[in-house]
Amino acid sequence: MKRILVIHGPNLNLLGKREKNLYGEVTLEEINKELKALGKMLKVLVDIFQSNSEGELVTKIQKSMGKYGALVINPGAYTHTSIALRDAILAVEVPTVEVHLSNIYQREEFRKKSMLADVVVGQITGFKVDSYLLGLRAAAKLVR
Amino acid sequence: MKRILVIHGPNLNLLGKREKNLYGEVTLEEINKELKALGKMLKVLVDIFQSNSEGELVTKIQKSMGKYGALVINPGAYTHTSIALRDAILAVEVPTVEVHLSNIYQREEFRKKSMLADVVVGQITGFKVDSYLLGLRAAAKLVR
Amino acid sequence: MKRILVIHGPNLNLLGKREKNLYGEVTLEEINKELKALGKMLKVLVDIFQSNSEGELVTKIQKSMGKYGALVINPGAYTHTSIALRDAILAVEVPTVEVHLSNIYQREEFRKKSMLADVVVGQITGFKVDSYLLGLRAAAKLVR
Amino acid sequence: MKRILVIHGPNLNLLGKREKNLYGEVTLEEINKELKALGKMLKVLVDIFQSNSEGELVTKIQKSMGKYGALVINPGAYTHTSIALRDAILAVEVPTVEVHLSNIYQREEFRKKSMLADVVVGQITGFKVDSYLLGLRAAAKLVR
Amino acid sequence: MKRILVIHGPNLNLLGKREKNLYGEVTLEEINKELKALGKMLKVLVDIFQSNSEGELVTKIQKSMGKYGALVINPGAYTHTSIALRDAILAVEVPTVEVHLSNIYQREEFRKKSMLADVVVGQITGFKVDSYLLGLRAAAKLVR
Amino acid sequence: MKRILVIHGPNLNLLGKREKNLYGEVTLEEINKELKALGKMLKVLVDIFQSNSEGELVTKIQKSMGKYGALVINPGAYTHTSIALRDAILAVEVPTVEVHLSNIYQREEFRKKSMLADVVVGQITGFKVDSYLLGLRAAAKLVR
Amino acid sequence: MKRILVIHGPNLNLLGKREKNLYGEVTLEEINKELKALGKMLKVLVDIFQSNSEGELVTKIQKSMGKYGALVINPGAYTHTSIALRDAILAVEVPTVEVHLSNIYQREEFRKKSMLADVVVGQITGFKVDSYLLGLRAAAKLVR
Amino acid sequence: MKRILVIHGPNLNLLGKREKNLYGEVTLEEINKELKALGKMLKVLVDIFQSNSEGELVTKIQKSMGKYGALVINPGAYTHTSIALRDAILAVEVPTVEVHLSNIYQREEFRKKSMLADVVVGQITGFKVDSYLLGLRAAAKLVR
Amino acid sequence: MKRILVIHGPNLNLLGKREKNLYGEVTLEEINKELKALGKMLKVLVDIFQSNSEGELVTKIQKSMGKYGALVINPGAYTHTSIALRDAILAVEVPTVEVHLSNIYQREEFRKKSMLADVVVGQITGFKVDSYLLGLRAAAKLVR
Amino acid sequence: MKRILVIHGPNLNLLGKREKNLYGEVTLEEINKELKALGKMLKVLVDIFQSNSEGELVTKIQKSMGKYGALVINPGAYTHTSIALRDAILAVEVPTVEVHLSNIYQREEFRKKSMLADVVVGQITGFKVDSYLLGLRAAAKLVR
Amino acid sequence: MKRILVIHGPNLNLLGKREKNLYGEVTLEEINKELKALGKMLKVLVDIFQSNSEGELVTKIQKSMGKYGALVINPGAYTHTSIALRDAILAVEVPTVEVHLSNIYQREEFRKKSMLADVVVGQITGFKVDSYLLGLRAAAKLVR
Amino acid sequence: MKRILVIHGPNLNLLGKREKNLYGEVTLEEINKELKALGKMLKVLVDIFQSNSEGELVTKIQKSMGKYGALVINPGAYTHTSIALRDAILAVEVPTVEVHLSNIYQREEFRKKSMLADVVVGQITGFKVDSYLLGLRAAAKLVR
Repeated sequence: MKRILVIHGPNLNLLGKREKNLYGEVTLEEINKELKALGKMLKVLVDIFQSNSEGELVTKIQKSMGKYGALVINPGAYTHTSIALRDAILAVEVPTVEVHLSNIYQREEFRKKSMLADVVVGQITGFKVDSYLLGLRAAAKLVR
Repeated sequence: MKRILVIHGPNLNLLGKREKNLYGEVTLEEINKELKALGKMLKVLVDIFQSNSEGELVTKIQKSMGKYGALVINPGAYTHTSIALRDAILAVEVPTVEVHLSNIYQREEFRKKSMLADVVVGQITGFKVDSYLLGLRAAAKLVR
Repeated sequence: MKRILVIHGPNLNLLGKREKNLYGEVTLEEINKELKALGKMLKVLVDIFQSNSEGELVTKIQKSMGKYGALVINPGAYTHTSIALRDAILAVEVPTVEVHLSNIYQREEFRKKSMLADVVVGQITGFKVDSYLLGLRAAAKLVR
Repeated sequence: MKRILVIHGPNLNLLGKREKNLYGEVTLEEINKELKALGKMLKVLVDIFQSNSEGELVTKIQKSMGKYGALVINPGAYTHTSIALRDAILAVEVPTVEVHLSNIYQREEFRKKSMLADVVVGQITGFKVDSYLLGLRAAAKLVR
Repeated sequence: MKRILVIHGPNLNLLGKREKNLYGEVTLEEINKELKALGKMLKVLVDIFQSNSEGELVTKIQKSMGKYGALVINPGAYTHTSIALRDAILAVEVPTVEVHLSNIYQREEFRKKSMLADVVVGQITGFKVDSYLLGLRAAAKLVR
Repeated sequence: MKRILVIHGPNLNLLGKREKNLYGEVTLEEINKELKALGKMLKVLVDIFQSNSEGELVTKIQKSMGKYGALVINPGAYTHTSIALRDAILAVEVPTVEVHLSNIYQREEFRKKSMLADVVVGQITGFKVDSYLLGLRAAAKLVR
Repeated sequence: MKRILVIHGPNLNLLGKREKNLYGEVTLEEINKELKALGKMLKVLVDIFQSNSEGELVTKIQKSMGKYGALVINPGAYTHTSIALRDAILAVEVPTVEVHLSNIYQREEFRKKSMLADVVVGQITGFKVDSYLLGLRAAAKLVR
Repeated sequence: MKRILVIHGPNLNLLGKREKNLYGEVTLEEINKELKALGKMLKVLVDIFQSNSEGELVTKIQKSMGKYGALVINPGAYTHTSIALRDAILAVEVPTVEVHLSNIYQREEFRKKSMLADVVVGQITGFKVDSYLLGLRAAAKLVR
Repeated sequence: MKRILVIHGPNLNLLGKREKNLYGEVTLEEINKELKALGKMLKVLVDIFQSNSEGELVTKIQKSMGKYGALVINPGAYTHTSIALRDAILAVEVPTVEVHLSNIYQREEFRKKSMLADVVVGQITGFKVDSYLLGLRAAAKLVR
Repeated sequence: MKRILVIHGPNLNLLGKREKNLYGEVTLEEINKELKALGKMLKVLVDIFQSNSEGELVTKIQKSMGKYGALVINPGAYTHTSIALRDAILAVEVPTVEVHLSNIYQREEFRKKSMLADVVVGQITGFKVDSYLLGLRAAAKLVR
Repeated sequence: MKRILVIHGPNLNLLGKREKNLYGEVTLEEINKELKALGKMLKVLVDIFQSNSEGELVTKIQKSMGKYGALVINPGAYTHTSIALRDAILAVEVPTVEVHLSNIYQREEFRKKSMLADVVVGQITGFKVDSYLLGLRAAAKLVR
Repeated sequence: MKRILVIHGPNLNLLGKREKNLYGEVTLEEINKELKALGKMLKVLVDIFQSNSEGELVTKIQKSMGKYGALVINPGAYTHTSIALRDAILAVEVPTVEVHLSNIYQREEFRKKSMLADVVVGQITGFKVDSYLLGLRAAAKLVR
């Protein structure tokens, strides 16, 4: 199976519009375009989903079973609190790559703990847009 | 009032499909059927609800006021983080039984703390499907 | 810009119906009416929103950008757990006043920690309905 | 093997005589009678043991090996401190159900931690006498 | 009784003279004038007291019994350490409003804990001079 | 009822024989004699019990119901670990005075926490033999 | 030297006037009278001092050197925070008895820790006025 | 004095019968035989005692005074909780060697803390039966 | 400005009179004389102040504004608890050197934390009288 | 500057020889070859260094100043303890990418904390050899 | 393989020269001689290595693979901090015995935690030189 | 003995070259020259040593025995982690002065804890180059 689902968590729809010093000037649309392009290059099909709702994200992950070979997820604020996302990833058993735009270890104390980090294959953090692109490369390897 | 509402939290819709070693092979549909059957035997009417969304679960609990004599709830991942569910149960004052399929004390550290445990009547944990059935028995006693 | 958005979090729709000893006898509708009246007096336009869903609250805050000069928010149970709400407030950069009906420092240990307190302008807690009214006054000053 | 041993820990011999608001008005003798009656109904033989001494409880559990198919234990105060009881249960490998009359999560902080919870099959807490009866039902399932 | 006592704790006599970026440019004298003016408007008599000494503050609170209908207190540094102030407020049973100029949740870790917060009616923090004015409004409601 | 039971916990039978620098040179027999003498002076009847076994101490406390008007207890090492002793004192509702020969706050960290301190009337610690005698005086007041 | 100084810390001047359920109905004047009377009986001279100011209490303790054979101190709120009082007691080396009217282990968490407990001879807590009288007895033994 | 007492704590009577993967296949009788044989070789007399009761173990240690030159103790589960055993060893002042069959640092968190470790001469852990034999060698050195 | 104020906190007036093993035999008067002499050598004018009262120390620091070029402070016991002193130093913005006679890291746990350490220029601890003299040298550099 | 230094910490010279299930079967030599090849493709020059000594690693990083445009470092065991490595990276100000073969969040608690994470640009963890290759890609972007 | 490597960590080269009360009067040379003699008796070949450098110790352990049947290590100060030593032991899979001269549980808090204890076969602590000799006996058993 | 050894820890060889805002513009060579000059003035001979390697620093301290009358050490990053340096200082018993250029209490949390502070004579922190010079003065006093 050569399909990869990229999931953006809450507030990522605002990317490039606010707090540019922290997250960069690129909008989510531009990131998505770059991901699609890289997907083409790596010969994997890339689907993309964004939601502010924990429940919708859980449901989307549940539906990835049997449909996607890997997930790339930036869980945003839910990274640090959502056991429901963790359980969904555990349940569907689709190999998952966790990415973060900013270096979460340079920020508030509560951002240093990820509820997902020990159930994903690996984590990439701090490279701004490149976190997504490196994450897609990692995921592409996993679906081979 | 002889009606009981059984509430299943996030990811429980996947029961019997994934992680069978942890949660058993029974699907949610089968559990629901067993609950309905036991309800008939105990002479209580059993309604059932599942959602992955914390907000929907809160709203459902709010609506149980004046309609159900007791709740049986498996809050899944929200057990450990949701103050909103706790507040809903506190607000509606419908006696509630908390149940868990797996023994939550044999798992990750963060699963050992329930945000609901001290606002429900009691908790039943570790007996797989039987947790639900014992929970329904406990609830049936409460509505008498 | 002279518009202020008041946001009520989960379970606040039950105000005045349950747990009256803790939150008082006033219903949410009555609070809203008082807020509108005070808004008129202070010459600010007051809009109001309530939801039990964290995701909907996040989305509502996102949409306040460029539309409201200040927010007054009672995040209810999400006060203590929601990094997503915090991130939304950080992102939109609309000055925000946090209010609580009850004195959160007289209650359970976990209610003493607010995930929003250090990203809002200020916090008002413990004055029942007056927390909202004082909060609206504070917000009205901010939009001048 | 269809025999079940019910073990009552320290101070449970005072049941129904003191602190009735917390534990109910039923005496230990009445609970035992109810357990015997339910045992008959469930077609399991029920033996019962009470002691205030940790050492005697350990020795009794040791002797359950090869003699009982399941244990129902209310370890009372030793729940929270006794590694010796935990080791005995681990050693004899007789499946065990932990029960508590009161909801231990509504009481002192130190009562929220059970030293046995992760070595028993499951835990039932908060249903007064019904905790024992539900526990016996759970144990009866285990011996089948 | 329509008299309100406003109490300023240690170092507040320096207001408007140093650290203006944190506390604003207004001096204590100007704040006091604004408080008196607002008091007149709200038809309450406002007395004012400042001291750097914990003991003097305790004694002043003790003497407010039977003389004032409410207190507005900015305990300054003693907020975070003084059990003696807490005990004085508990003893005199005059309803008290706690105010802070800066948002104490945006500062050092030790400033996030108030020893008074759970014995006062409510707390207002972060609105600079307006914290006092809102606090006086809250107190004025309490004396009615 | 004018009878008082004095209870000595584990290792107190060695008093005056070992570690004299810590506990003094007086033997338990001599303490008991002093207690009896003071009892006579205070016109209360004094019974005395010592055991190294937690279970026996629990049972002894249980039996004090209806027989003694007050307890004076030096729980020795069980002070810091025994919830069973705590529960026994709670259950029998005989007013209890906790005494310690040495100043427990000058010793190992784990000795600074008493599991009984908040269920007894009061605690006397650090006065060697006089802890017992002052404790008996306190108890004698309680039985009046 | 047969003189004993009794020191009352902050807010103890309000005794018997407020919070009578917690501290009893006896005023400080009445306690002092009882102390003087008991002193006479025990043949020690009793002086008494009360202050709300930590600095004054420190200075008073300093001046007890060479003048008093023992101190009886109820440090009130300063019990839990004052290293300065601790240092003063350490410096003057006058044997000291710490007393508390209420049982400090039945109250807020922060009241369970005394900064003085390990530098005094012993502590007596929970016996209301009798804490003082027993403390004076203990001190009288120390000056012999 | 050339006598050594070996003390086995709770559940060690089950050795070689259960949980063989953790503790090995050797029974307590066989260990005792090996200890006696090694004792003969080292020219020390070896006595042996086992009990599940903390109180009996305490009493046995008390009685070792003046009778044994050293103790070898495997306190089993009481290692981690018993201050009473610690106090007994402190009191009798017989040099003591603490031994454990399994490597306690490879097990549950609570097994990593020994209440005895800082009052014994030394500790030997992890060598199965050899822990006892090495412990006896160490004790034999101490009695010389 | 070439004036330096040396501030001695609580109990330092007892120096050289008590606890000589800890603080040395030199009295405060002698230290002050040495400080004055060194000041003369370094061509700075040295003023000196001692108080047992936190409030007086705060007020003294407040008055140093515009009058002294640097402070040398030994806050004694207030080092570890006084946010009021910290705030005063922050407010006056006079560069400050913190000194301690004893090595505070060799003493009780609570002495290892200074509330001032991160708002002063630097800290000198452990060199007895020389801590003051080195501190004065450091301060003299700061006023140049 | 288009040169990148890859640094391997302690024990990484054993890669592919031991613990293959954890770290994979690839040897360090093979990883180095892959890195050199990818470097060629990305048009950056790749130098490589391994040491078991913290001091040598520090010195190597110091020497990278002015010579390399970026560092890729797998600090091995020193990740979790070395402030010296952290200081070296801070001092030389060469942008650094931290990589780990295994997912450090799936291992012992102490491996979850990196002393470097908040001073590097970003971290890549869990992708075995690909962690290095993705890290080199990230570094190559940084030198452009 | 019948060869055993004994490794001495930092500062052990000073044995018998300094701090004799803590570590005894025997020098490292004398210990080594005793180890060689005991090795001869036990028919194992004993090699010995000492270094103050963590990196050198790691390298030495790495080189023990395939050459030694067991290690006896006294890691000195690195016991409590070195994950690199732990990783080396994990990697080479040579069974290892950890020994300490002093009883590490009688010393500073930070010495009570060993980073190696759960990856070695067992630990022997507190018997001075005999810790090494008992450790060699344990290792000799392991190579059989 | 009038010789003093000054020891510079890891990364101090970079002084004055990088991070000048934190550590100042002076290079290590210039500091060393100032130290030598001051040494001449104080009539003590000053030797100087720098290393990035913990092991080499330990060895250097070991060799200071009998050769130097005092040490001045800036342990750099090893301040916060090295028990080996602590043990070396303890072992050689040469009086030692700990110095830091920056105020370590104004920096990351982990820099606030020194593993050496309680085994040195005293600590001087925050005065940039003057920390060394004041430290040398303190050491010069110690060798007299």
